[in-house]
Amino acid sequence: MTEPKTIAFVLYPGLTLLDLVGPLQVFTGLAGISPGYRVVVVGQDREVTETDTPLSVRPSHTFADVPSPEIVVVPGGLAPTWRAAADERLLAYLRQAAEHAEVVASVCTGSLILGAAGLLEGRKANTHWSHRHFLAEFGAEPVGDRWVEDGKFLTAAGVAAGIDMALHLVGRMAGDDIARGVQFGIEYDPEPPLGPLDWDQAPHELFAAYTAAGMREGLTGTALAERFLRE
Amino acid sequence: MTEPKTIAFVLYPGLTLLDLVGPLQVFTGLAGISPGYRVVVVGQDREVTETDTPLSVRPSHTFADVPSPEIVVVPGGLAPTWRAAADERLLAYLRQAAEHAEVVASVCTGSLILGAAGLLEGRKANTHWSHRHFLAEFGAEPVGDRWVEDGKFLTAAGVAAGIDMALHLVGRMAGDDIARGVQFGIEYDPEPPLGPLDWDQAPHELFAAYTAAGMREGLTGTALAERFLRE
Repeated sequence: MTEPKTIAFVLYPGLTLLDLVGPLQVFTGLAGISPGYRVVVVGQDREVTETDTPLSVRPSHTFADVPSPEIVVVPGGLAPTWRAAADERLLAYLRQAAEHAEVVASVCTGSLILGAAGLLEGRKANTHWSHRHFLAEFGAEPVGDRWVEDGKFLTAAGVAAGIDMALHLVGRMAGDDIARGVQFGIEYDPEPPLGPLDWDQAPHELFAAYTAAGMREGLTGTALAERFLRE
Repeated sequence: MTEPKTIAFVLYPGLTLLDLVGPLQVFTGLAGISPGYRVVVVGQDREVTETDTPLSVRPSHTFADVPSPEIVVVPGGLAPTWRAAADERLLAYLRQAAEHAEVVASVCTGSLILGAAGLLEGRKANTHWSHRHFLAEFGAEPVGDRWVEDGKFLTAAGVAAGIDMALHLVGRMAGDDIARGVQFGIEYDPEPPLGPLDWDQAPHELFAAYTAAGMREGLTGTALAERFLRE
């Protein structure tokens, strides 16, 4: 019997919860159907930690417990994600895990953490639409697709895009029949009440203010402050 | 200054995490834009509790802390949801909260808990597609829409439908411009890699087995066993 493949979701304080839980639910569905997969949530420790919602969460494992997962998924957020991007212990875990992993994935601004770890240099990548211009700061080439593949790196657009990316990855790993079964399981048959997003109407100015405030709050006092918080 | 409206998400052990987190992220987005709303997650106590994924969670408040929220949202799940449907303390909280609430909502099989509380008698409602036939057991009329409104009751289809339902509710409460802002915030512009679900291909037999096993596991030893676990 071969060992199951481990999919590790990376948890850090204050992250955007749906970035994590969308793909986590998809991969938990996969593991429920197929014994070939194991899903874990890894954190620096196993303490209960805050999210950007009123729900607090606790990971199932520590970084040290799962040094070499086959798949790594890094969720995003606002200020807390910049703080995580300056957290050397988190970056060290990602660099080490990325060496052996088959797929290193991110959702939303999680790709900025991968960028800060030096993993996106020269690669195509995406992030939340409001943060796309930051990718170039890490040597990555921004691409506005729902998910972007470049080698072992797979980076999704913002928040809800993690569900689409995860279903794509399940299809690639386990086949379309399994992916369709998971999609039926989570009844992912979207009907956004106002329809798809009209990108001509994107509130760039409003979100630019959030983006700047989040970066300032997250990076103040960190090693990345000098690089990003120029006046 | 008027008091903010409270949106209370109901937590119970073992629930399907995305049922909760999809709409929770939407309403947290609303509260971030508008000071008129407060979001809480309520549980019987504030202990860390398991979900159907490897992530454990802790609510922000207890039932006793938030006796009269304006909006109540009840997520679903498999066996644990049947167990919750037989939990008199949870049902008592829902009956009391429903009396004063403006909207009583559910995601996925969360509507079966509302049904067990006697709240859906004579009402149109929906649930996860695989569980739709159970609604009649609680006197409700099953309707297969993405979300179904009947009076103050708003019941969504399975898991991911909670996001659509929540955006609809935000639009109704705060207007379409705010709802669109939240939709941009979570970049909800779905691209399911295999397209929308083809209901002619729904794996009814496979899911009927899950459904039966989940009900048996959840209800064994509870007050609802005699009613539902007939041989």
